[in-house]
Amino acid sequence: MSHYAIGVDLGGTKTLTALVDGRGGVVARVRVATPTTGPDAVIEAIAASVAELSNRSGVAPRSALGVGVGAPGPLDTGSGVVFEPPNLPGWRDVPLAALMAKRLGVPTFVENDANAAAMGEHWVGAGQGVDDLVYLTVSTGIGGGLILGGRLYRGASGTAGEVGHMVIARDGPRCGCGRAGCLEALASGTAIAREARLVVESGRPTVLSQVPPEAITAEAVARAAGEGDPLAREVFAGAAAALGVGITNLVNLLNPALVIIGGGVSGAGELLFAPVRRIVRQEAFERPGAAVRVVPAALGDDVGVIGAAAVVYERVRS
Amino acid sequence: MSHYAIGVDLGGTKTLTALVDGRGGVVARVRVATPTTGPDAVIEAIAASVAELSNRSGVAPRSALGVGVGAPGPLDTGSGVVFEPPNLPGWRDVPLAALMAKRLGVPTFVENDANAAAMGEHWVGAGQGVDDLVYLTVSTGIGGGLILGGRLYRGASGTAGEVGHMVIARDGPRCGCGRAGCLEALASGTAIAREARLVVESGRPTVLSQVPPEAITAEAVARAAGEGDPLAREVFAGAAAALGVGITNLVNLLNPALVIIGGGVSGAGELLFAPVRRIVRQEAFERPGAAVRVVPAALGDDVGVIGAAAVVYERVRS
Repeated sequence: MSHYAIGVDLGGTKTLTALVDGRGGVVARVRVATPTTGPDAVIEAIAASVAELSNRSGVAPRSALGVGVGAPGPLDTGSGVVFEPPNLPGWRDVPLAALMAKRLGVPTFVENDANAAAMGEHWVGAGQGVDDLVYLTVSTGIGGGLILGGRLYRGASGTAGEVGHMVIARDGPRCGCGRAGCLEALASGTAIAREARLVVESGRPTVLSQVPPEAITAEAVARAAGEGDPLAREVFAGAAAALGVGITNLVNLLNPALVIIGGGVSGAGELLFAPVRRIVRQEAFERPGAAVRVVPAALGDDVGVIGAAAVVYERVRS
Repeated sequence: MSHYAIGVDLGGTKTLTALVDGRGGVVARVRVATPTTGPDAVIEAIAASVAELSNRSGVAPRSALGVGVGAPGPLDTGSGVVFEPPNLPGWRDVPLAALMAKRLGVPTFVENDANAAAMGEHWVGAGQGVDDLVYLTVSTGIGGGLILGGRLYRGASGTAGEVGHMVIARDGPRCGCGRAGCLEALASGTAIAREARLVVESGRPTVLSQVPPEAITAEAVARAAGEGDPLAREVFAGAAAALGVGITNLVNLLNPALVIIGGGVSGAGELLFAPVRRIVRQEAFERPGAAVRVVPAALGDDVGVIGAAAVVYERVRS
């Protein structure tokens, strides 16, 4: 008999729900805008997506092993309670796992979205078969998840893996978390766009000065850098160097066999990966530096739903 | 029947060998200067210490479960080979476990000294019963070990736990490892002494200016700070603040229930712990910050031999 799990990637703007088989294959997926009117509406939207998946696939929701939800933190995996995620307005201490299980009639498990993504990449993505890996997602912010000894490492209260909030430059720019010089404040998409706007404002010549300020995104900077714009290259190189320093810290501390970088900024490809790899090679201790590879994530936009399904398979099996 | 293990704390200047019972109690210990003429002389010195322990305790070496050696890294735990530790001159790719096992006739296991200390504190020290903890030793350098999910975490090639070589200030002072602004370059005993000497050289008034330069150690700075010398307080506070930033990074990343600080500099007590705890409380994310305690190591000078014995019990049992 085939096994199925339902994976939900609950984001601030959109929610992807998918039926995922026991080998990590996405059988069907439904994408909707995330309702902004609070948890009840979100649960109804997910239930409607699940019904549609069932219609399309012929797999009854109740025959699924369970539902996994990758959600923005902070949250408590054990109890399935989502606290106050900054990008889910109106949510406060929501017992999401219990509410979803009641609504759908199947066991539901909730996990931090970056942790779920790490599990997805470990299961059927770039980290298959690798017991010790660090996953980073570099987009608006920088999040991550740690697979240590073959399993997701959650720490003492389920919050482990916050790779973005490691200070690497105490005199650096202020971070959203309140500290100064966090990796996120130096190498996230938001940080890249901010630095690029500062360059444009300074009046130095760059193709980015022809772009409206609100369209100066990390992607636009990467594109301009790819086309050879010297100042865009400088901005992107600064972020990549910070990421290299942060990853070297992780390599020295955790000695992973693999560092996987996903998220929108990783789409810049070698513009990002080449300097990161060079810094790790030059700065990490010899043995952990030789033991690690730095690679792009493999699962693209499906990483969230596959990872959320991985959470189900992990929980049901254990 | 009682079980015994022999624990060896092999240091650059002295070597402590002890008979340790199955509950982590030190039955007898022998301390010798570490021979500086290479591995053969060291192995003979340890064999002589083991013979003396046997005479004193009546426990035959061959009845011990095994010998554990905590040694300076880099080394390979699996094969028991010690590579080129900077503070063991003349050592290069020494198969220490095999040589010791042959000489003593009992199974021998080799572990990085900071990892062994982490295991000791976890077994019968400040970390008893705590599944997720970070151990730091702050002395000449800064080393550490990670207990994650109740076990020592060694990483992909056995080098995990290098907490001292995390860059927290990219513009900071050069570190012995070649990077700039590592925690070790800012908060180790060596860093404290260096900063204090700079203050003295600057001519600013401090009781430390009456101390010969070579006697300006972290301990002397801590003493002067404890007596109220403003500049000594400033120097020590700077190191403690750096340590607080580094530990906050670890708290955000790993979400440990406990951070244990050992090593000579931790002897400064509240002068070190109060600012570290304040920074963790102020700067860490709310949940991991609330989940963690920062405490002094409990085993003192015996931590190395107890930890080395813990390695034996772990290996023999698994």
